[in-house]
Order: sequence, then structure tokens, then C-alpha cells
Amino acid sequence: MKIAKFGGSSVADVAQIKKVLSIFNADDERRVIVVSAPGRRYPDDTKLTDLLIELYHLVIGHADTQQITDKINTVLERFQSIEQDLPLKQSLIPHFKGKLEHLIKETTEHARLLDALKSCGEDFNAELIAAYNTQQGIDTLYYHPRDAGLFVTDEPGNARVLEESYTAIKDSLPPTKKIVIPGFFGISKTGHIVTFSRGGSDLTGAVIARALDAGIYENYTDVSGIFSANPNIIPNPNRIEEVTYDEMRELSYAGFNVFHDEAIAPLYSKEIPVVIKNTNRPEDPGTLIVSSRQAEGVVGVSCDKGFASINIKKYMMNREIGFTRKLLSILEDLNISYEHIPSGIDNVSIILREHQLHGKEALLTEQIRTTLNIDQLSTEKNLAILMIVGEGMKTAVGTANKATQAFMDHQINLKMINQGSSEISMMFGIEEKDAVKAVKAVYNAYF
Amino acid sequence: MKIAKFGGSSVADVAQIKKVLSIFNADDERRVIVVSAPGRRYPDDTKLTDLLIELYHLVIGHADTQQITDKINTVLERFQSIEQDLPLKQSLIPHFKGKLEHLIKETTEHARLLDALKSCGEDFNAELIAAYNTQQGIDTLYYHPRDAGLFVTDEPGNARVLEESYTAIKDSLPPTKKIVIPGFFGISKTGHIVTFSRGGSDLTGAVIARALDAGIYENYTDVSGIFSANPNIIPNPNRIEEVTYDEMRELSYAGFNVFHDEAIAPLYSKEIPVVIKNTNRPEDPGTLIVSSRQAEGVVGVSCDKGFASINIKKYMMNREIGFTRKLLSILEDLNISYEHIPSGIDNVSIILREHQLHGKEALLTEQIRTTLNIDQLSTEKNLAILMIVGEGMKTAVGTANKATQAFMDHQINLKMINQGSSEISMMFGIEEKDAVKAVKAVYNAYF
Repeated sequence: MKIAKFGGSSVADVAQIKKVLSIFNADDERRVIVVSAPGRRYPDDTKLTDLLIELYHLVIGHADTQQITDKINTVLERFQSIEQDLPLKQSLIPHFKGKLEHLIKETTEHARLLDALKSCGEDFNAELIAAYNTQQGIDTLYYHPRDAGLFVTDEPGNARVLEESYTAIKDSLPPTKKIVIPGFFGISKTGHIVTFSRGGSDLTGAVIARALDAGIYENYTDVSGIFSANPNIIPNPNRIEEVTYDEMRELSYAGFNVFHDEAIAPLYSKEIPVVIKNTNRPEDPGTLIVSSRQAEGVVGVSCDKGFASINIKKYMMNREIGFTRKLLSILEDLNISYEHIPSGIDNVSIILREHQLHGKEALLTEQIRTTLNIDQLSTEKNLAILMIVGEGMKTAVGTANKATQAFMDHQINLKMINQGSSEISMMFGIEEKDAVKAVKAVYNAYF
Repeated sequence: MKIAKFGGSSVADVAQIKKVLSIFNADDERRVIVVSAPGRRYPDDTKLTDLLIELYHLVIGHADTQQITDKINTVLERFQSIEQDLPLKQSLIPHFKGKLEHLIKETTEHARLLDALKSCGEDFNAELIAAYNTQQGIDTLYYHPRDAGLFVTDEPGNARVLEESYTAIKDSLPPTKKIVIPGFFGISKTGHIVTFSRGGSDLTGAVIARALDAGIYENYTDVSGIFSANPNIIPNPNRIEEVTYDEMRELSYAGFNVFHDEAIAPLYSKEIPVVIKNTNRPEDPGTLIVSSRQAEGVVGVSCDKGFASINIKKYMMNREIGFTRKLLSILEDLNISYEHIPSGIDNVSIILREHQLHGKEALLTEQIRTTLNIDQLSTEKNLAILMIVGEGMKTAVGTANKATQAFMDHQINLKMINQGSSEISMMFGIEEKDAVKAVKAVYNAYF
């Protein structure tokens, strides 16, 4: 059995939707497809999900009724144009309109309303696509996550899949019919719609694939696989033929957005392979993500911006039992996630994503100063993290050297090197202004 | 004013003690000297402190009286031979004997007895040296830390200096007389003798220097300064002319034992310089330890063995708020000190000194497994940490590269690289078996 997920660009208009259905129908093994909300049709286009977020802001900002009605109509027009172009004989627009109006009327809590509205892009699209495929003579069912048994934690915008989903999904979905399921969200145990973090449709597909014990999870997008470096920086980069789950997790962490990094987790234990394919060129081999592989050297170089470092110095820090634990408690109390905590003898740094500091920086530094009686504290922003990833690095003497040589040759100052905990990656902290130069230098050193 | 401290080899026999006193008396500015216990006179000799530890074990092991008496006599004979050779006219041996017997009789708690006995090497030596100098016509006072006001925390074998000592010492010591003080221990607020960690006489000198606001703290040993690498590994290594407190702290951390790393702390705020000098060649310039300096490049390479790494893998670890804090709490509850916690996306390692695991390893790994629900845990031992230290590294692009090149050229596998928190050092984790080769390779790369 195959489970396929199609990204926003694959379902942006009728031409794309027809490609999706031709792939769906071409293989009886392809039992369930997960669809995203309609994405951009042209560079300046607005994604449907963004329209829904605009609608949310009008509602909670108590905009006048006309503005809200106008926005609802803009959302519906997008689906209407898809219906007309297909064409779909029996319109779903009145049904969609009712759903939106009901959600706006009944959902009082802001975070809940945001999640509920955001889910409509995927939800309406799935229902519409299933209806059209049935109209074409292939009996196809639409399943809302509520009916599919996709249960998640109750954290708006940040859902995690509950373990019981796997049995529930297996029990809920009929074993022979073709099925379309909206991606991006699940249902909490209190019955609320809760979305995953953005791009979470990948996760929906992965959960379904695991629940049904699929032979492969196909992830359709608009590129023919994953490249060894960002194609916006490196012209015609090497396409990765095969990459492991672990390598993919590491690459995703620092900016490889082709496949949502949390979508690997459900596939891990059952070793279900993923193939990243191109909806527009389904004949291309794409990139295979597998549980293990014979590997040599480096598979990819990723780089992400927007990091900051809080550097703390305290004389005799290493004699003070519990210092770092106390520091981490302060971060936890302020609900600040951190990434790494490199330490020296009398120093420790907290590397985190810069947005974690928004609105909390002053409070955080003040609490560190008063609670921990430190000597010095400084904050460095505009940092980038460059990752070099590859299962083959475990055994290679000199991998680090190749990178440091490249940095030196291009006069790139290394703010941080973190190697050792993960055997398959090396992490370098640099200034954001050096990011493009660094990716080029390192890519050329390895490929 | 100058405060001078003399190490164990500088006070091991009469010839050495006479050199010490000639240095002491040569300069009226040299007001207070701190002395160690008699060290080794020849390679197979036993240090006096070790004899005292043997005595402790006999006492707590309930050895028979004769054995204990024999050991007390062995301790006293060492001082007796010094007295005879000087010669000292009025023997202190009966007084020392009484002190030892009193301590053994009155101290019931084991940890307290160990500290009390260990303190006698320094204590007796100080009293004896002061008496001899007075006999030679230079009025010299002996001050026990109890009378000198050196107050410490009540942690046997691991004392920390209490802030109030600085005023107390200033108030206790007469401002014009020459004074001899035993190193290595202080007095807790409950009146107990509590020793510093081994080599702690450096700390006593530093505390006196700060309390009296000395112009310089002279630290006399048996080498003419500090070298850029271990002379047992590198023949005729470069002598360091000047090094900062911070550089010294970093070098001491990984095996540079010339100056006790914690002895820097008291000098820090008052910027009192330290000079490391040779008792046998006091005319040599030695090495100056200062608060800041104009620096270029690397000042030293140190390497210490006996590290271990506990490597933990948990899928989606970086989504779990509080994971590392919980991990550190487990270590803290077991009273295990750790050194560094390098982390990847789904991994974290705890780097610690191997002896921290003694008797606790099974409990620790079991608690980590049960409390944190992890996927994998492995422990790696026999690791060494190599440090490259230098204030000049702040600005040098390519410092890392020189080191990684050296490791690669000599086929040394890097288990860990930690750079970034301290601006003046870089830390490399390697296997112990590669330690000598690595120090040679890196030293030759920089010097």
C-alpha cells in the first residue's frame, strides 16, 4: 500500500489537481492521499491559509461585518474557481460557507478559532477533490481527521500526535476504498481542531502511513527530490538519491524545508521509506528517505539564520554544582526553548532561535543576573548555523578539517563549532552576513 | 609587599629550606611566606602528606597500637632529620608528637581526622621554618590559619575560602614582622581544620596576597616558569613569558598543574600579578600571570586524560521542553559533576571526569533510562581533552583549521570539538591512546 501526500503547489489550481488525481488513480496500491490547502498559483498569489489567517484577524479585531463577509467571499471564490474549472457538478460552496460562519459564531477562544479557520484550507480542498474524483467514476471518500481517528494533544498551533491515533485510524478507514484526507491538523480529546506547526501536512501523511503500515510514503511536491544544498545559493546542486531518516532530521533542522522534520518520527519504528517526488514530473526518481544506508562522506549542507547566543561568564562556574541546571530552569519558566549550551571552564552560552527572545529578552537577562550572580553577560544576534550532515562522517578522519579549511580560505569567522554528540553532523556558528559565502565554500569543499 | 609561596620540593630538605629562607630574607618587601609539606627528596621518596594519609588509614582501620606508633615515628623522623641538619637548637618534635596524638585521640569523625592529619605536613613545616629563621636572628612569626583568620567552608577535603577571611587576615597579621603560614588548609566556622583540594597551598598564598593587597604573589616551584606544553611530551618546550589569568585557568583545567587553577580567583578582582619562579634558580625570569596582555596566537596546549562521555539519543528530544534540565537534575541528585553537555538535534552528551562515575554509573544510567524515556544510551571512556589556549585566538580566522589539519595529518579521530563559549580556548575530545601524538602534532602546528 502507498500513502501519498500532495503539497500546496500540487493542489493550487485545477491543472495541478488533475495531475494529482492522475497520479492517485494510476495505481490501486495508492489508497489514501493527504492534501494541503491550495498554495500559490503565481509568485504574487496569496496562499489560501494566509487568507484564512487574515479572516481570523478581522474577526478577533471586531472588524465590521462587511469586511468579514468580503474576506469569507474571497476564500470561497478560490474554491469556486476550482469548482468551475473542473467542473464540479454539485457545488460545495454553500456547505463551505456554512462551515466558516458556524466556526466564527461558535468559537469564542482566539487560539481555537485560529486553528479552526486555518484547518479549512486543507479540509475544503480534500472534500472537493474527493467529490470530483467520485464524479469521475472512481468511488472516493473524504475523511475529516475527526472521523479518521487522528487524535492530537491540545496545544493550539503545535499539536503532537497521540499514540492511540494509530489504532483509531486503522479501525476508522475502510480497507478498500480510495480516501482523501486533509493534512495539517487533528482533533484533541476535547473535540477541538488543533493544527500542527506550519507544513504539518507531511506529518498527517506520515501518521496515516504508519497507522496503515504502508509500504511507502510518497511525498509529492514541486521539486524532483532533495538537493545537497539550497538551489537558491548553489546553481544546479547535486540531487540526493538516498538519505537516512537521521540525516534528513539534521538537514531539516537548519533550513531544509522540503520535508517537515517531525514527520520522520512516526515512520521511524516501522522503517517505512519516504520518497520525495515531483507532481509535475512523477517519472523522475526523486529522493528516497530510508532508515539506513551504505554511506560515504557528506550528503548535504544546510544553513539557517535567525539564531542568537547569550554568553555568560562566571569565575569558578565549574565549581558551582547546579549552575547550568538553574540556568535552564530560568529558561523553562519563561517558556524559552534553547538549542545548544556549549560551555567552557568559566563560560556557558545559550544558543537559541532569536524569535524565542521576543518580548522576553530583558526579563531573561535580568533573571540570569540576579539569580545566578554572574560576572558578565552579553547577547549576540544575527547568527547562522551551518550544518554538515552525512552518515559517512562517523568514520572519516578529516571531515572537520575540510570544513575549517573552507571557512579559513574564505575568511569566515567561526563563532562556534559543535561536534561530537551527533555522529552524523557537525554544526558551525557563523555570522548571518557570511551565510551565503559559507554555504558556497563548504559545498564546494565536499561536492 | 610580596607574598611568596614555596611548593613541596622547595621545602623537602635542609638544602632547599635554606634556599627558601635566603629568598625570604633577601627582600624586606617579602613579608609573608606560605610553605607546603616536605615533598620528595629523590624520585622514590614518599611525600610527607602521603605518610600522613597512611597514618590516617591505620587509625581508622583499627591497626594495632605498635603500627600506629611506628607510623607516627616515621612522620616525626622526617622533621627530626630536618631539625638535625639545620640544626635547630630547641627541638619541636615533642610538640609535634603531642599534636598528632591529640588529633588522633580527639577527632572521631573520619573525614575530619583525614583533614586534620593531612594539615600537619604544612603546619609542622611552617612552625619549624619560622623557628629556625628566628634562631638565625631574623624575628619570624609562625601563624596557624586559625590565628591568621583564614576561614573556609565546612567541606572536608574541598574547602572554599569565605569572603570574611580577607578582612580577618588583614586584621590578624602584624604589619611589620616576617611571617610563615602553612598552606593547604583553613578553619571552618565550627572550628574544624578543612583542607583545600590537593595542591591547595597555591590558594593559601593567593588569599593572603589579596588580603594584604600585595604588589605581587610569587609562586616558587622547581621549574623556571610555565611551558607551552608538557615537557614530558615536548622536549624543551617554549617557556611562556606572560599569560593572563584566564589563559592560565583554561590551561590548568586540562593538566597544567604548575599553578592551582582555583588560586586565580582571589587575585582576579585586585589584579594582583603572579610570578612562577624556580627556588633553585631565583634569578630566572619565570612566567608572569597577569590580568590582561597584548596577545597574538596561541599560548599553550594542554591535555588531560580520564574523561568519559555518556551519549543519549531520543527522537524529537528538541521538542521536549525541560529535557536537559531534567537530565542535569539527575546528575545533581547523584552529586555527579559534569564538564560539558554538547548537543545535537536528537542527541545530547554529558562529558565528565571518569572518576565521577565510580560507584554511580549503573544508578545514573538506570535513572536516565527510566526517568527520561530515551531511545539509546551509550558510555564512552578513556577519553582525553586537549585544549588550545590563547587570548590572541579571539580574532584569528583559521586557528581551528590549524588544529584540525594537525589531527588529520596524524590520523587522530576527533570525538568532539567544542569551540565558542570561551573566546580564548578550543577544546577537542580524543581517545586517550592518541593523547601524546595529539599534543605533539598540535604543539608543532602552533610553535
